[in-house]
Amino acid sequence: MVMVNEGELSRFEVEVEGWAARDDSGILSPINFTRRKTGSNDVTFKVAYCGICHSDLHQIRNEWKNSMYPMVPGHEIVGLVTEVGSEVKKFAVGDRVGVGCMVWSCQQCDSCSEGQEQYCDKTVLTYNAINADGSPTFGGYSSLMVCNQRFVVKIPETLPFDAEAPLLCAGITVYSPMKYLQMTEPGKSLGVVGLGGLGHMAVKLGKAFGLRVTVISTSPKKEKEAREVLGADHFIISKDQKQMQDAAKSLDYIIDTVSADHPIQPLISLLKVQGKLVLVGLPENPIYFHPAAVISGRRFVGGSSIGGVKETQEMLDFCAEHNISCMIENIPIDYVNTAMERLGKGDVKYRFVINVAESYSSPTAN
Amino acid sequence: MVMVNEGELSRFEVEVEGWAARDDSGILSPINFTRRKTGSNDVTFKVAYCGICHSDLHQIRNEWKNSMYPMVPGHEIVGLVTEVGSEVKKFAVGDRVGVGCMVWSCQQCDSCSEGQEQYCDKTVLTYNAINADGSPTFGGYSSLMVCNQRFVVKIPETLPFDAEAPLLCAGITVYSPMKYLQMTEPGKSLGVVGLGGLGHMAVKLGKAFGLRVTVISTSPKKEKEAREVLGADHFIISKDQKQMQDAAKSLDYIIDTVSADHPIQPLISLLKVQGKLVLVGLPENPIYFHPAAVISGRRFVGGSSIGGVKETQEMLDFCAEHNISCMIENIPIDYVNTAMERLGKGDVKYRFVINVAESYSSPTAN
Repeated sequence: MVMVNEGELSRFEVEVEGWAARDDSGILSPINFTRRKTGSNDVTFKVAYCGICHSDLHQIRNEWKNSMYPMVPGHEIVGLVTEVGSEVKKFAVGDRVGVGCMVWSCQQCDSCSEGQEQYCDKTVLTYNAINADGSPTFGGYSSLMVCNQRFVVKIPETLPFDAEAPLLCAGITVYSPMKYLQMTEPGKSLGVVGLGGLGHMAVKLGKAFGLRVTVISTSPKKEKEAREVLGADHFIISKDQKQMQDAAKSLDYIIDTVSADHPIQPLISLLKVQGKLVLVGLPENPIYFHPAAVISGRRFVGGSSIGGVKETQEMLDFCAEHNISCMIENIPIDYVNTAMERLGKGDVKYRFVINVAESYSSPTAN
Repeated sequence: MVMVNEGELSRFEVEVEGWAARDDSGILSPINFTRRKTGSNDVTFKVAYCGICHSDLHQIRNEWKNSMYPMVPGHEIVGLVTEVGSEVKKFAVGDRVGVGCMVWSCQQCDSCSEGQEQYCDKTVLTYNAINADGSPTFGGYSSLMVCNQRFVVKIPETLPFDAEAPLLCAGITVYSPMKYLQMTEPGKSLGVVGLGGLGHMAVKLGKAFGLRVTVISTSPKKEKEAREVLGADHFIISKDQKQMQDAAKSLDYIIDTVSADHPIQPLISLLKVQGKLVLVGLPENPIYFHPAAVISGRRFVGGSSIGGVKETQEMLDFCAEHNISCMIENIPIDYVNTAMERLGKGDVKYRFVINVAESYSSPTAN
């Protein structure tokens, strides 16, 4: 745990309101801090909505052992542009824009060149990180964002604005491996493990790509909604050995969104020959499986982390085209501590989104 | 352990000599048995040479718990055709031919249709398996083979015949994942873990594809030969943490040929972003690694098993074109028990090949 120098909070000229964690108690409280003035390559926007990602909870509690306080979380941020720098041509005042998990990267390495800035060694995350100028980054649980245009995306006008915010992390995190592994061929079969923020997006995107989607869950009570609302074709209780055996070798792909420790080998057994399993949750402990489980069918197990900026824009446009957004619970910012408690218990369908603009009485932003 | 009915040994009309394991002692001794007469789709050939694969040792000792006795091992078999069936057009008497790990498959499933018969659920292995007619399969530690033409390959005339035999298992086992994962782009970097029968072929094939090849080994004494004879560009001692750290994120691909239990996560740390590690050895116990090791760089860990018949032919032709064969120790068949002992201690460079024809005083076959 690191405490940021208090001077950093008043270093810049633009005053911002937000909510911050001050220690690892998991409790947030109001904070005033500053952001830089709009630079020549910056886009400044009034935050309309910000999604609450499960990683926000991990980080305010210092569960990844790298937290800096005060911490203003939030990396699923959408809003309306209030000012652009002189070099900014792609965005104009009033535009719907968004910022996801990154606000900077080296822009020179192979990963950056390939539009996969999330794998750049010098990526600066949207909060709990340090900008090139030495100042800490603060996220979207706040009234105003300033971000280099390279890391800003356009948010489609045709979808509910609040339900678009979580696309910037939950959406892209499942979309990116779907594109990378070519899970886009209609008729192929996709297993989605875990039906939370990421999982429900994987089901929606999978169906939009024409896949046959099987939800694999520990909760029988999720079946009805998975099938009837989200459009899943099959539903398997992962602890039901008969159901798992019946589904052996039936899936081309699996996206595993579960961040709690859980057995991987039973999931591998669901893969066809040449099937691929991709981890997008981040369990705390090592995963293990017998080599024969992969060797016997040329199967692969890997992982994927969010997605690049260009790919995020592509995903947003795809979602607009297919009328896909997140199922959310829209909350005021002073509900955030209760929301965190409920999130810790998995009590949310499927994402909390903070109504930031309304919380700060700024009707123009909504 | 299963004992084959003795009647099966004399079921057919063609008498064959060979060496067999009679129990799990690991000792082989001479045996007389029969094979079917050449059927309309069969190719019959006098065995010239047969490689000794490490899996032969596992199986004569019943280490995979599925051994049937008497067992005539051997699935790296080359020889000269003595008779072909009426439907056989591709092969003629006198041709150099070979049979690898499979003698039958369903020929209807997706894997068979894609030329990856090794992943067919109904594959019949060359020995220690049961033919469709109910008779046991016997391998190449024997004077004569009879095999359906679908599973016979042509052996190029331009390479030493004995040194070609191990291409049928050791060669194809590393070639197949190299093609599947597109490890064929000159300048890409390949790590080869373990420098035995499979590993030395991976180095040779990697160099032929124009890759920069790094050998990763526990044995410093292998460095000189790896570099000077096999042409490896780099050599890393896997237990030397400094060397491993210096090589972090340097490899596009890793082929792991080690069949003893060993840590995987340090190997994953050698992979670049989007790097892939493929297991072709078969360690006894589960492998494990932290999910972050793959998620942080979109890396994948998988496995691969031998290769298809068509792909085996392609590999043989590629080897002929690039003058690649195995480094072998040519032995008479009555040396086989000593060879097995030495193989168990890793005391072979890099493959024992039994001179079957000479052992059975059949000069025409050599």
